[in-house]
Amino acid sequence: MTPIAISLGDPAGIGPELIVRAWAQRQAQELAPFFVVGGCGVLQQAAEAIELDIPVQLVASIAEAADVFDNALPVFGSMDCAYTPGSPHEDGARLALASLEGATQLAVGGEVPAIATAPVAKSELAKAGFAFPGQTEFLAAACDLDAEDAVMMLAGPQLRTVPLTVHCPLAEVPSRITKDLIVHRCTITAAALQRDFAIPQPHLAIAGLNPHAGEGGKFGHEEETIISPAIKQLNISGIDAIGPHPADAMFSAHKRSTYSVAMCMYHDQALIPVKALDFDEGVNVTLGLPIIRTSPDHGTAFDIAGYGIANPGAMIAAIKMAAKCASNRVAYEARVKADAETDV
Amino acid sequence: MTPIAISLGDPAGIGPELIVRAWAQRQAQELAPFFVVGGCGVLQQAAEAIELDIPVQLVASIAEAADVFDNALPVFGSMDCAYTPGSPHEDGARLALASLEGATQLAVGGEVPAIATAPVAKSELAKAGFAFPGQTEFLAAACDLDAEDAVMMLAGPQLRTVPLTVHCPLAEVPSRITKDLIVHRCTITAAALQRDFAIPQPHLAIAGLNPHAGEGGKFGHEEETIISPAIKQLNISGIDAIGPHPADAMFSAHKRSTYSVAMCMYHDQALIPVKALDFDEGVNVTLGLPIIRTSPDHGTAFDIAGYGIANPGAMIAAIKMAAKCASNRVAYEARVKADAETDV
Repeated sequence: MTPIAISLGDPAGIGPELIVRAWAQRQAQELAPFFVVGGCGVLQQAAEAIELDIPVQLVASIAEAADVFDNALPVFGSMDCAYTPGSPHEDGARLALASLEGATQLAVGGEVPAIATAPVAKSELAKAGFAFPGQTEFLAAACDLDAEDAVMMLAGPQLRTVPLTVHCPLAEVPSRITKDLIVHRCTITAAALQRDFAIPQPHLAIAGLNPHAGEGGKFGHEEETIISPAIKQLNISGIDAIGPHPADAMFSAHKRSTYSVAMCMYHDQALIPVKALDFDEGVNVTLGLPIIRTSPDHGTAFDIAGYGIANPGAMIAAIKMAAKCASNRVAYEARVKADAETDV
Repeated sequence: MTPIAISLGDPAGIGPELIVRAWAQRQAQELAPFFVVGGCGVLQQAAEAIELDIPVQLVASIAEAADVFDNALPVFGSMDCAYTPGSPHEDGARLALASLEGATQLAVGGEVPAIATAPVAKSELAKAGFAFPGQTEFLAAACDLDAEDAVMMLAGPQLRTVPLTVHCPLAEVPSRITKDLIVHRCTITAAALQRDFAIPQPHLAIAGLNPHAGEGGKFGHEEETIISPAIKQLNISGIDAIGPHPADAMFSAHKRSTYSVAMCMYHDQALIPVKALDFDEGVNVTLGLPIIRTSPDHGTAFDIAGYGIANPGAMIAAIKMAAKCASNRVAYEARVKADAETDV
């Protein structure tokens, strides 16, 4: 497989040390080959800071990255900067942005099968001219899509969730939940689970908005007026969606074994259960894009950067999921093509 | 120890079979003695339905209940009814209510050290004349307290949470969260953790309302205008409260080891993590009352009643917690009394 591109993330955060740790564990974790876009010096310094003796090698092409991966951590692109762990500054943000843009362009151009992005600090990126609320919106724009066509999914070993609304005050959530929003994002999610996650018949569990999913209208009416009609419309178009489920009970071990993904009404409804269950292995994956993109579901953690105590579990899980989604998509598209030819 | 009183719950639900299973496991689980208020025939039928050969014995006094507990499940009070598992009806609801009232009166009168209440269906209880939104509010009234003085806490082996608002639409949550509410309920919670949970210095982690706890005002202002001032006031009065914490991250294994209880802004924020982590051992405990009351944190589950598949874990955990809180409270009050005498 062509190597996966990894964006460096903010140099002052834990991204660089997670990447070098992931490379160090490439054999034990059976990781598909990857390379980093830029930051050769950053990665060398990160390895030294946590006392890992790792060869970091600048490569001139993706083919060369594939060749050297077994013996060195390949870096493609010469951009770099000086940095201090835990102290973000503008040079670092500029490098993080250049790395993200570079990795994205390689994926959009079809030169890599997937990208995994290390954590950035949105407030720092903004200082470097980044005009998007987050990486997900940036990726949608890079793929010439509207922001609402890119769907964030959180995935851990025990649970997948999609927040239908994300970064808005809780008070605005009820007015932002519409039938169209639910139908649109559930449709994207179901298609992505088929194509990238090898789930032929995805089963979507739809959460209620209110406690006990409103308990028959006693604690709110959105379940009856918005969510149930959306589910009906999804079912008519052939999508296996069931609900609305009382959100407090739907993440128990028994319940979560009955569905492929929980579609949640707001940020914390989706993120609380994934992080409670799988904090060190949670992956943020962007659905609905022509490219495959994953990310560890944690931030830059400036407070612990450089101490060597950051857990690389989620970064490793993000790299694994990127590779797995890429091979699933290749197989899916081959199947679709074969089916089309059989029909002819 | 004087036996604990257990209320029967709705006969058509899983309550009776959980109680007989708990009694059957009294030695393996090292349960303190308990008896059931009413429902002798109900419990016999429940045991037979799940093929448990259990002696159920009507007793004339609590002292007799203590004597027979080793050899039979003691029942105090002759009220009873015919019932069909899974089919609630008014006679059953009346019995459930009489059992709850009887157990509560025994606790209020100081005749038992604690009560554990099996699940009732609020909609069924209402048909039998129950005028309260839930058992917690009923218990507050029985103790001559306002409903806001009774605080619901969910407790599992891995996490304790308190929802500051409970049964209201999500859209109403932001307007219901006030500084006074937070201070009042945190104060009750801290005192109860000292008195009933043997935690000398309770550490309260306060959740934010908005995603990322508002991220400095970007996603809502309640953290700055309401929650932080409440925390400041709590700290001034000597209560160790910290926050507001981003709710999605505060329930990870690492984070939850750093506090005694998470104070949550709404129902699902508090219940999702407890049920995701500890569904089969979650206990609902009412704080702030002169009596001790626990309950399994699940409903009547009419759909599986009588099949013998209901998990008694939470009922057993509720009985254990009731006994433990009772002995903690005795020790605490003895210590307070001794301290007072030393001061004299």
